[in-house]
Amino acid sequence: MAEQKATNVHWHDHRVSRAEREKAKQQKGVVLWFTGLSGSGKSTIANTVDHKLHEMGKHTYILDGDNIRMGLNKNLGFSPADRTENIRRIGEVAKLFSDAGVIASTAFISPYKADRDAVRALLKPGEFVEILVEASVDTCEKRDPKGLYKKARAGEIKEFTGISAPYEAPDKPELVLDSNNKGIDELADQVITYLKSKNLLTA
Amino acid sequence: MAEQKATNVHWHDHRVSRAEREKAKQQKGVVLWFTGLSGSGKSTIANTVDHKLHEMGKHTYILDGDNIRMGLNKNLGFSPADRTENIRRIGEVAKLFSDAGVIASTAFISPYKADRDAVRALLKPGEFVEILVEASVDTCEKRDPKGLYKKARAGEIKEFTGISAPYEAPDKPELVLDSNNKGIDELADQVITYLKSKNLLTA
Repeated sequence: MAEQKATNVHWHDHRVSRAEREKAKQQKGVVLWFTGLSGSGKSTIANTVDHKLHEMGKHTYILDGDNIRMGLNKNLGFSPADRTENIRRIGEVAKLFSDAGVIASTAFISPYKADRDAVRALLKPGEFVEILVEASVDTCEKRDPKGLYKKARAGEIKEFTGISAPYEAPDKPELVLDSNNKGIDELADQVITYLKSKNLLTA
Repeated sequence: MAEQKATNVHWHDHRVSRAEREKAKQQKGVVLWFTGLSGSGKSTIANTVDHKLHEMGKHTYILDGDNIRMGLNKNLGFSPADRTENIRRIGEVAKLFSDAGVIASTAFISPYKADRDAVRALLKPGEFVEILVEASVDTCEKRDPKGLYKKARAGEIKEFTGISAPYEAPDKPELVLDSNNKGIDELADQVITYLKSKNLLTA
């Protein structure tokens, strides 16, 4: 038994700590969780924030429909249980990126408070930055970049958030972005200002 | 309709490309997939490689039992379907890290060829580096750092890879590490040498 223990010494892990990963990146690992209606501008704002941070030399990544629904969550549909599991997995992956010291943004409607709060509960205090992208159904419907509102109004899409399914806005989001009245650049800068104010862009 | 299109122009995504993320990190995004028996040294070698790369200023992350089984895959058991789904999800997450320009290591037994090949198929040629950590059952059983072989021999663990369940070694792994006869440091350096030889540590 003593011999076995001695052997294990040679097999000790030199595990790189989260703090060491953050120091190397000169930033804190954090999850920027954008939530809001389809067409509110979540993805565009998230990408603009991401681009600005990248230009500042920060290490970032975005989880969105393009890389999640076709990959990790391709075996999930749109039942209530699957929607919850969809957000849970995204939250767990965002947590891994954050643990890696990366600034991870997510851009999903994520209409249910309970699902978002479950992700918040996975993370340390301050690590989950909930960002409400506020835009009225009217505003979103006028933009309708993917023609989804049109289809929802025609009854071709059932349970469409804001039309035939509820959107539960956060009670106390870390940030509210007024996408009805402000431009992308201004809103993205609001996020950057927040990150600076919380010392998340230094290690 | 023309008005709608015009509106969309303002909402154009400034998406940071994979190449831009890799350039910022001065490396290529890649998945180092360590496979081998329990006790073969996968996790220890992966952590040593990770540590060495970190010291070289590279951007890395490790997916292993500690951060996957308790999180993303906590709703999976050990049935054949769940084992396959376990590896599939890990592969998809490793792909996201690689897409982010990170050198992502995974350290799971991953005994089935089909499951590993499915992950390889998710990735671009050259992006999946399959690393067989070769150690005999004898070697692993002597180490038995978690006491699992003892339990398996006593029948307390069913379907234990190498004892009561098969391990399907890769036919053409990118690397074979001889963990029966070589030390951790030498094996880790073998991985680093491979990464350099494939120009994966530059952008």
